[in-house]
Amino acid sequence: MNDAEFRSIVASFPCQVHWGDCDPAGIIFYPTYFRWMDSACWAFFAGVGYSAKRMRAENLAMPLISADCQFLHPAEQGDHCEVRSKIARFGGKSFVLAHEVLRADGIALARGSETRVWGRFENGPGSRLRGETIPEELKALFRA
Amino acid sequence: MNDAEFRSIVASFPCQVHWGDCDPAGIIFYPTYFRWMDSACWAFFAGVGYSAKRMRAENLAMPLISADCQFLHPAEQGDHCEVRSKIARFGGKSFVLAHEVLRADGIALARGSETRVWGRFENGPGSRLRGETIPEELKALFRA
Amino acid sequence: MNDAEFRSIVASFPCQVHWGDCDPAGIIFYPTYFRWMDSACWAFFAGVGYSAKRMRAENLAMPLISADCQFLHPAEQGDHCEVRSKIARFGGKSFVLAHEVLRADGIALARGSETRVWGRFENGPGSRLRGETIPEELKALFRA
Amino acid sequence: MNDAEFRSIVASFPCQVHWGDCDPAGIIFYPTYFRWMDSACWAFFAGVGYSAKRMRAENLAMPLISADCQFLHPAEQGDHCEVRSKIARFGGKSFVLAHEVLRADGIALARGSETRVWGRFENGPGSRLRGETIPEELKALFRA
Repeated sequence: MNDAEFRSIVASFPCQVHWGDCDPAGIIFYPTYFRWMDSACWAFFAGVGYSAKRMRAENLAMPLISADCQFLHPAEQGDHCEVRSKIARFGGKSFVLAHEVLRADGIALARGSETRVWGRFENGPGSRLRGETIPEELKALFRA
Repeated sequence: MNDAEFRSIVASFPCQVHWGDCDPAGIIFYPTYFRWMDSACWAFFAGVGYSAKRMRAENLAMPLISADCQFLHPAEQGDHCEVRSKIARFGGKSFVLAHEVLRADGIALARGSETRVWGRFENGPGSRLRGETIPEELKALFRA
Repeated sequence: MNDAEFRSIVASFPCQVHWGDCDPAGIIFYPTYFRWMDSACWAFFAGVGYSAKRMRAENLAMPLISADCQFLHPAEQGDHCEVRSKIARFGGKSFVLAHEVLRADGIALARGSETRVWGRFENGPGSRLRGETIPEELKALFRA
Repeated sequence: MNDAEFRSIVASFPCQVHWGDCDPAGIIFYPTYFRWMDSACWAFFAGVGYSAKRMRAENLAMPLISADCQFLHPAEQGDHCEVRSKIARFGGKSFVLAHEVLRADGIALARGSETRVWGRFENGPGSRLRGETIPEELKALFRA
């Protein structure tokens, strides 16, 4: 990230490690972090006015280009966590979310990112999706 | 089930217990069986000509009314299994699938059922869904 | 359930329908309800003093014998819900949980149950598990 | 990757996109790819003699340091796929797996990697895990 880095508000998405989120090693099964990051992204957008219902009504979508995560500390069943998310960068038709998963005691469990396209279904879910230029009005909603 | 029980063909859906399907007790996390039963149902219908693509193209759906499962024997990571499925009963607009999960050595791991409605979206996925009378032609495809 | 039905306290487990919990029909994928019921059970036990950490430290487990669910109303992404759980019955070494999933506006989305064994690993997770007589002290913790 | 890149055998893990693996956009929910990569890794190790049962018996584990994935093409319900996996690099106590997800017609759907530690539980699953120097004998099993 460089000078062009976006100064973003930071959202907090609460979550908890459940029995079924863990594997036989007794710690979190790592795809769970990606499920959380995805949920945190949707909650972040809902928080600025783009709820799931609105996204659907307006045929909007934000499919992934890539995702990555570093696993810093094992999480165990019962751990209360939050995903802190911000917009790391807005491109023309794509954007990058930076996520950090913190345990209630402040320990960072994981740090990841998602790169997504801002797009619109031609004719409802399942139809062809086209990337769209991200409106300045949308960017403004995330500016710190 | 009574005299009216449907004489159904039996489908086999292969599956395997993966690391992430297990919980900290080191055995299968039980909702996995329901994921398998759902997949087995879709594969069963695909096998008689109702593929996912056709279902979608014709706005067809088969939402659940209820599901249940008995867990007979623990499954462990690496276990090769199959779900053996049949139609237990056809009602007017609903039907019952009976599923049995067998381990490769023949041990029955679980036995369950799903009751589903046969329905059609008014206007694509996400729109209102209406139950439809199950056509005799469809029933015939499952008759043993 | 009969006269012997247990008068149980009722626990509330909050949850929300996320994007990844839904399927191409745009509504909740039904095994999600079982994941929630499982999490609600663990949270219920944690609430009376049997946290995941204690369960693990004492080699306790509560594997499933059976589970079932009726799906009453479709749930959509973003829906805020709670699982209301109670002990429907205590047997000698097994017990039944009754769960109801309510949407924030009070609509009942699903109603299910889990039958579980109360047991102990001989030598930690992954080792042989034996059912144990449920102590009266444990039952008392759930009495209304 | 550089000259030190490991010349690895390539494993193939078959998989299929199921109804419950897809989201309301009608395509694969992206954490599914990470579930597949994890399963492919375990299958790869099982294929060279390190089955889940052996890993467990010897207290071996391979927790993640990081994971990433690029999503190249949407996958739909019913798509038959394979994950092609190889060892991209062996470090002292860690190693990198490179995974490619191909659809049956040869289209690359996703490309990702996992960085894992080779470690051993001090006292069974759930206990402290220590990284171990990867034995040359293990590396040899993956050499092309």
